[in-house]
Amino acid sequence: MNILITGGGGFLGARLARTLLALGELQLNGASAQGIQRIALVDRVLPPADLMADARVTAVQGDLAELIAQGSLPLADTQLVFHLAAAVSGECEADFDLGIRSNLDSTRQLLDACRQAGHAPVLVFASSVAVFGNSPEQPLPEVIEDTTMPTPQNSYGIQKFIGEQLLADYTRKGFVRGRNVRLMTVSVRPGRPNGAASSFLSGILREPLAGVRAICPVPPETPVALSSPGNTVAGVIRAATASAEEWGARTAVNLPALTTTVGEMLQALERVAGPAATQLIDWKLDPDIARIITSWPSRFMPKRARALGLRADESFDAVLREYVRENPQAIQLPVKD
Amino acid sequence: MNILITGGGGFLGARLARTLLALGELQLNGASAQGIQRIALVDRVLPPADLMADARVTAVQGDLAELIAQGSLPLADTQLVFHLAAAVSGECEADFDLGIRSNLDSTRQLLDACRQAGHAPVLVFASSVAVFGNSPEQPLPEVIEDTTMPTPQNSYGIQKFIGEQLLADYTRKGFVRGRNVRLMTVSVRPGRPNGAASSFLSGILREPLAGVRAICPVPPETPVALSSPGNTVAGVIRAATASAEEWGARTAVNLPALTTTVGEMLQALERVAGPAATQLIDWKLDPDIARIITSWPSRFMPKRARALGLRADESFDAVLREYVRENPQAIQLPVKD
Repeated sequence: MNILITGGGGFLGARLARTLLALGELQLNGASAQGIQRIALVDRVLPPADLMADARVTAVQGDLAELIAQGSLPLADTQLVFHLAAAVSGECEADFDLGIRSNLDSTRQLLDACRQAGHAPVLVFASSVAVFGNSPEQPLPEVIEDTTMPTPQNSYGIQKFIGEQLLADYTRKGFVRGRNVRLMTVSVRPGRPNGAASSFLSGILREPLAGVRAICPVPPETPVALSSPGNTVAGVIRAATASAEEWGARTAVNLPALTTTVGEMLQALERVAGPAATQLIDWKLDPDIARIITSWPSRFMPKRARALGLRADESFDAVLREYVRENPQAIQLPVKD
Repeated sequence: MNILITGGGGFLGARLARTLLALGELQLNGASAQGIQRIALVDRVLPPADLMADARVTAVQGDLAELIAQGSLPLADTQLVFHLAAAVSGECEADFDLGIRSNLDSTRQLLDACRQAGHAPVLVFASSVAVFGNSPEQPLPEVIEDTTMPTPQNSYGIQKFIGEQLLADYTRKGFVRGRNVRLMTVSVRPGRPNGAASSFLSGILREPLAGVRAICPVPPETPVALSSPGNTVAGVIRAATASAEEWGARTAVNLPALTTTVGEMLQALERVAGPAATQLIDWKLDPDIARIITSWPSRFMPKRARALGLRADESFDAVLREYVRENPQAIQLPVKD
């Protein structure tokens, strides 16, 4: 089996690739297990060295839209595409045209390229909790279900929701076998901050653990819906292994979320690394970030995900300890077991 | 005030233009009434002669996307745009690329042209009941509300729903003042059949009244949600006159629907024109048309439309008598008062 991952040089794409390579095989679309021969990682940046060193990995470097226009994606013999590449929420809000180009146009071009490939590859589309937005004119229900109508309150959410619609119709027409899956905010992300409005939801843990000050731009009582990197990748892979019958409707599946608050996350940080960690937090309200983050819902009833065997992370303490265990090089403060 | 109507050469666009010209003025976006100086009718075909004869009417003939690319739409001094132009449901199902081009690309180009105009014109987007689709994997609720999640089961519905999303975000960004309004199936349409799956819902009345045989491609018990041409135009105009506060959420308003069945429509026909009319119906199931039509819902709770003062047609008898009264030249059978 050959796999292609857009955004494959990014954190989540690289983690997905590592997990797939470790599995070595996959039961694609409910079929029996097949060995993974090739994973093409498509991104502007090259994948990390450990992935480049794996003989099964091919890097395809460049702008996604340009690569598609040039016919540079090896789709003819690819059975499974994970479409993770996107401009993130804060970027799209600051630069409307960038978001339209990166998230809407590129997704459509990828769909058309998969359609032209002619063999209806499985296409897992990483949509987002950001399709849900609360507003005074149209308040969200207390608990979000798979059938709750998305009312995005930012351009990123709109573009992701449009991507879901396109994928649903390309699937109905038999051009691809689409799996729309909505990711929760991934925390704790290693590495550096990015342009997502939710970037601080990793930064307020990662930076203090590295002995670096971090800004928290929202009040401690702000509720959030999180998923650890490992749990997120498990959900994305399950979308590929589910048969069309198991998956059900062409609409998106909400992945399970750990509902917590920013304050509770920092309490967990203090339990793991002591007050020396939380003293590195600077509370500085950012209205732009707060507006986006507080418009997202935090409580979910993810029926379809549960039926697929997926579960939320157990606790944020567990998530944080997993981060510490997986990223020893990024930890500068003493941590408790 | 200057107005532009895409699809302005079509039946609904022409009727909208006539109604606006008869009004002579409009309370746009909740403001005080202003006289209508110009209505630009944009279409591949020229508007009917009566409209061409009105000094306030300007015809802009051509393909919408090409006209926009050439900068031929007089948007700089237009305060109100009605976007009615679309490829219809049956066409989009038969020719996927046509639908994407006509309904998705052209809508986006129009939005960008309005954005470039720089003064945030009011833009009324004619979306459709076709955004709602029933399916075994995701059954619709018995009664559709404004907050019911659309799950389109055909390309036309997907493209209309994407148009709604784009308009909502262009509105949120302040590029336009958008009004998403979902039209029910319009019946009785005068003139000739078109490529819409719902075309027969006018044809089974119009053709027999003209003494011509007509095919009914669905069973008589098929439920449908209808609106007369006059009532549909009233809803579309109300979308323009409502202030942003009256209109509420940027999501679409479902226009009121008369819920009836194909059988009841033909009973009304028999009451109006006798058995000589219904004997001109040939029952011939068309699975493609039936699949689209039966996926659409028929019962609505149109709270937002009602709050705006809009009502469904009273009965299909009333709708049919209105058609007879308005189209004397198209009636060949003797009709009862």
